[in-house]
Amino acid sequence: LQSTGDRNFDVALPSADRFYVDNVVMRVHLLFDVEPGVVQVFRDSLPDGFVVTLGEAPSDTEILVSGRPTPELLASLVDLKVVIIPFAGLIPASRESLLTRPELKVYNLHHNAAATAEKAIELLMAVAKLTVVNDRSMRSGLWSPRFDTSDALQLDGRSVLVLGYGEIGKRVAKVCSALGMKVSAVKRRTGQLVDSEVKVFEQSAFSRLISESEVLMVCAPLTPETEGLVNRAALESMPKEGIVVNIGRGPIIEEEALYDCLRSGHLHGAGLDVWWQYPNSNSDTAPSKFPFQELYNVVMSPHNGGTVVGTESSRMAALSELVRGIHNSDSGLRPINVELGY
Amino acid sequence: LQSTGDRNFDVALPSADRFYVDNVVMRVHLLFDVEPGVVQVFRDSLPDGFVVTLGEAPSDTEILVSGRPTPELLASLVDLKVVIIPFAGLIPASRESLLTRPELKVYNLHHNAAATAEKAIELLMAVAKLTVVNDRSMRSGLWSPRFDTSDALQLDGRSVLVLGYGEIGKRVAKVCSALGMKVSAVKRRTGQLVDSEVKVFEQSAFSRLISESEVLMVCAPLTPETEGLVNRAALESMPKEGIVVNIGRGPIIEEEALYDCLRSGHLHGAGLDVWWQYPNSNSDTAPSKFPFQELYNVVMSPHNGGTVVGTESSRMAALSELVRGIHNSDSGLRPINVELGY
Repeated sequence: LQSTGDRNFDVALPSADRFYVDNVVMRVHLLFDVEPGVVQVFRDSLPDGFVVTLGEAPSDTEILVSGRPTPELLASLVDLKVVIIPFAGLIPASRESLLTRPELKVYNLHHNAAATAEKAIELLMAVAKLTVVNDRSMRSGLWSPRFDTSDALQLDGRSVLVLGYGEIGKRVAKVCSALGMKVSAVKRRTGQLVDSEVKVFEQSAFSRLISESEVLMVCAPLTPETEGLVNRAALESMPKEGIVVNIGRGPIIEEEALYDCLRSGHLHGAGLDVWWQYPNSNSDTAPSKFPFQELYNVVMSPHNGGTVVGTESSRMAALSELVRGIHNSDSGLRPINVELGY
Repeated sequence: LQSTGDRNFDVALPSADRFYVDNVVMRVHLLFDVEPGVVQVFRDSLPDGFVVTLGEAPSDTEILVSGRPTPELLASLVDLKVVIIPFAGLIPASRESLLTRPELKVYNLHHNAAATAEKAIELLMAVAKLTVVNDRSMRSGLWSPRFDTSDALQLDGRSVLVLGYGEIGKRVAKVCSALGMKVSAVKRRTGQLVDSEVKVFEQSAFSRLISESEVLMVCAPLTPETEGLVNRAALESMPKEGIVVNIGRGPIIEEEALYDCLRSGHLHGAGLDVWWQYPNSNSDTAPSKFPFQELYNVVMSPHNGGTVVGTESSRMAALSELVRGIHNSDSGLRPINVELGY
């Protein structure tokens, strides 16, 4: 069982279930951190004839569920038709692997779009209102923020640019609109250009839009086109008192430029759930080359936006729905464009 | 100049402006903390003939702007017709004072409804997502919340009860609805019972509604009827993992019961901007008889929800609009019912 984090589950399904099923309909192999109890619920949610395996992937696997398939594994699975990435986004190494088998259909799971969008709103509010500073003060018995001239910003009436208008970005835009903000959004694929109260633009409009936006919510996947998109010029063009929130991927924002703009006070603050450096497990790897932890106007979050009570259950429910949809050739399913990275 | 906080401004308007104006239309006296520069903007926003005074109230004052008028002051102002409280809510002592002159029309200012509603959403998100705990961990170089089983709650799909459905409560309900929550609201004055996606009930339904609500947002004013309304029975009847947010007034919630429910873990957490005890100035008065500051599942805020960058300007703009509305006998104005307390 390959681990994607520091958790390992010793899962042993009965061998009869694994290899001897009459009338096999579809063979699904789970190659990611998954709790045994949840796997059973997943199996029970599928019709008869679906074979679900864990551990080493059988060579006749048809659907592989893995966030990090290696080229070697993909080459060894001769019957493979579908890869399901059990989260949103495509890790660059996985993109490279998947490009070696361009005939495969690749899907994401969006089970945690709501939780991740809520993380974006959480960070927006915490940055605008200085939640952490207020709480720390009150815990020390100091009411001073009540009497100081407040640095808190009102969001009602401010302009916000939502970068990335997928499952998460749409939810973020909806809440920003309910907060009374003026919402614009940027998406790569064109299509519907106005979505109720949200103005949706193509990526080419980004540099103009960012210079007019008091708040930037980064909800995009990391792709060759988004990497470094929020660069120094973009950040410096934002109006004073700007707020930046990132729940997409760290490298979409230029690390040193963001640090500088926060330190100088050009930006009011930033809320970051995603980073430029990650630990392999619960070690003390710094999230950045720059000391963001020294800045009072940053709210730091350990890339847990998608993780809430019940995440594993909702992940498996979404996986079950997708697998059944694939089996039924559901026309509403939209595979990832691996070339584009989402 | 009476101070309402620890700030005092030495304001001296030209005496000619104060007392010698031809064709006086209306005499407005400001008896609250107000910055001189902002007063000038306020005066300039009114038509000719409006006299605006500061300091000791002239006996011919017609409109008094004060959050804490004493009975003695009210008795001395023989021409007084209107009292404007320059914020939302009615302090109990002011209610007693105003009941001595029942013929006066009394108005609140709701200029900070947006900021206060945003404070409620801020606290809701911070409690649900453990913002402060995550930030503290990351600042110490620890990614552990990424790898621990998360205690964060998803709000999408949860039920929320908004207690108090005025200017603030309506805004809170709208954002909760955009977050995918199932929204009910309680208001005292009956009227429209369904407001788009929000089900609105009378106060008599409170004890049933609270027992079905995973989140309680207290947005009500303190009145004889709301004081202690959120008592032990109400809190204990909430489903497990409940969240309580209070941006109304502290004594609406039973202090010890809330502390107990947080400490026992019956509640997931609470976000509190309003308290049971206040300092007179920036002293170290504890906000409660109980050590809320020892609880990790509380987010503490120093009653600064209504205070954001630009508050004073928007307060004076709202005051100007109200004064002109009073002068024009605008039929849309709704005075407070002093007896009821709002």
